[in-house]
Formats: sequence, C-alpha cells, structure tokens
Amino acid sequence: MSANIDFYFDFSSPYGYLASTRIDALAAKHGRSVDWHPILLGVVFKVSGSAPLLSYPLKSDYAKRDMARSARALGVAFQLPSTFPIATQSPARLTVWAQQADAPRAKRLAAALYRAYFAQDRDISNPDICADVAAAEGYQRAEALAGLNAAGIKDKLRAEMEAAIARGVFGSPYVIVDGEAFWGADRLDQVERWMATGGW
Amino acid sequence: MSANIDFYFDFSSPYGYLASTRIDALAAKHGRSVDWHPILLGVVFKVSGSAPLLSYPLKSDYAKRDMARSARALGVAFQLPSTFPIATQSPARLTVWAQQADAPRAKRLAAALYRAYFAQDRDISNPDICADVAAAEGYQRAEALAGLNAAGIKDKLRAEMEAAIARGVFGSPYVIVDGEAFWGADRLDQVERWMATGGW
Repeated sequence: MSANIDFYFDFSSPYGYLASTRIDALAAKHGRSVDWHPILLGVVFKVSGSAPLLSYPLKSDYAKRDMARSARALGVAFQLPSTFPIATQSPARLTVWAQQADAPRAKRLAAALYRAYFAQDRDISNPDICADVAAAEGYQRAEALAGLNAAGIKDKLRAEMEAAIARGVFGSPYVIVDGEAFWGADRLDQVERWMATGGW
Repeated sequence: MSANIDFYFDFSSPYGYLASTRIDALAAKHGRSVDWHPILLGVVFKVSGSAPLLSYPLKSDYAKRDMARSARALGVAFQLPSTFPIATQSPARLTVWAQQADAPRAKRLAAALYRAYFAQDRDISNPDICADVAAAEGYQRAEALAGLNAAGIKDKLRAEMEAAIARGVFGSPYVIVDGEAFWGADRLDQVERWMATGGW
C-alpha cells in the first residue's frame, strides 16, 4: 500500500518534536508521504483522563533528563523551554491555516514553530511569536496572524480534533500506518518496520 | 567501568517481562552483569501519584495491542493474562528468598515466574502457583513456600523497595547504568549505547 501515513502531534510535546524531525525521511525510505495533524493534548487529556508527564512527581525529573538525552541521541537541538507546557491553540491554528494553501509548505512552518519553542525557547503560545515565525518562513505576517485568529480555522481545528479523538488518538506523537497505531517517538523503529513489512 | 547494572521490574509489568528476556544478553555484550530487583509497582504508584497503564480509558486498548505487537517484534511468547494486573508480593518475595542463596539461579526462577504469568496465563499472585514454578525449577516446593512467607523475606523486600524509591525508581522496567536511569523496555537501545559509550 502507498497511502499516506498520519502523524499527530502537539506543539508542546517534546517527543512530538523529536519525532517530527525524523518522520518524513523515515516514510520516504518506504515511498510513503506523511500527513501532519496538529492536536491539542489538553483536550485529549480531558477525554483520556491522563495528565501531562511533568505533573507526576517522581517522573518529572526523569522525563526532563530523558527528553534531553533522547534529543542528543538523535543529534537534535533541544532545551526544555522556560515555560512548559504551553497552550498550543495558536501554532496549531496557524498550521491548519497554512495547510489550506500548501501542505508541504505548512510542514516546514510547523517544523519552524517546533524549533522556535524547543530549540530557541520562544513562547509559541503567543500568536505574535507564531506570526514572527511565519514571517521568517516567508508568509505575510499580517495574513498569518489573521489566519490563526479566523473563526473558520478554529472550527477546522476543532473538527480535526474530534476526528482524531474518534480515531483513538490520545497522545503525542501518535502515528497511524495503514490503520495500525503507534504512540511515542520510541515507536518509530516499529513504524519503519511496519512500513517495510506490512505488519507482523 | 564494569560495575553491575541494576534492573528493576514488577512481575505484573508486561514491558518488564519483555525487558527481562533481553537485559542479560545485552549487558554481557559489554562485559557487564545485571542485578535483578523485583519491585511492587502498587507501592511505587502510591508515591508517584501514577496509576496502572490500563486504568486510562483511551490508552488501554492501545496498550494491549502494543504489548502483544512489541512481544512479537522481539519473538517473545506473550498473551495478556486473564487476570491483569495482579499483586506481586508472592513472586517478588520468592525471588528475594532465592537470591539469598544463589543470585544467578534466582534470575532463572524469576524468568520462569514471568513466563508462567505472561506466556502460560498462570496467576502468580497465588503463593501455591509460585511454589509450583519453583519446584519445576528444581527448588524444594515446601522450602520455597516457607521462604516466600518468611517474615525476614518480607522485611528484606520492604527494605529493597525503600531503597528503590530512594533512588527514584518509579516504573517497570527501570534500568540504572553507572548512575544513569532508563525507564521502559523501549529504552534498552539507549541502555546498550550507554554501556558502549559511557554516555553522550
């Protein structure tokens, strides 16, 4: 099969960021393309009854160390942002807005937003910062700002969130290959094997 | 360095079981030995404020699928036991009892207990089942049963739990290599790389 694979991610998810740096190259090796789906983990957690990783006392110190160590293992620039986690409506909406015109270009914008947050410690929960990132990627700043605030874009993101939850998406990153779901940056090896073999 | 590495696991942890099938061979490749430490996740969860994986609604179906898929990927026999999770005092105490006499032999017993639960659907929360497994491994059944019920063994497990929590252990499997902690069967590749390189 050669249908696109689906990549769900929250802009405040460190492991989503790590996965985002690898997922397209990995899919391309198997002749596959990737559809990127920004999600809002805050909404998902209300449904799943879960909570952000760093809200568990003993796990928190470990998780911070693991994020940085996993990033170094992949050679990806990473620092835990000074504000973490953040609400991600703005970058998610900006991405949805950009996807309407040009999905591959929107992917580059999403990657730039991720880098702004996790490599440059810029608070992308702020619409103005999002617009700055868009401008640096060649978008018209005012258009980007208007886009992420447009009611139609908010509705579209809401509809996509509902579709994601209906598919069972409960975390970030979350990848679906031919109906098979994989949760976590540490499942990308299985994602690759699934594309290569069609399952086991 | 060639100090032993530490492997913490709960007998009701599917990913602990998966890791237990690989950890010694992996360590041996780097000239290292492994100390096995049975823990009680129920006690840990009280400290960490966390909860068993299957208690989160959306994650539950995914987790069941992921356990089986990850087992198949490793070629390890696995079926989700009909009673899951279980209290693991009995197999943990039996292991602690066996470790007092012969640690390498106790490791084989622990592996047999894990297989009994996750490959043969035998309820190892039952002391009699644990004693049966011990007998099949060549232990005197009555001695094993007395051992896992001995007050001294209960105290020893309690002391080891306190030591584990003091080290920050909050999940299963949990591996510590030269002071560096790794949580999850999906971190064994990093565990191996850490042993090979001394860190990054």
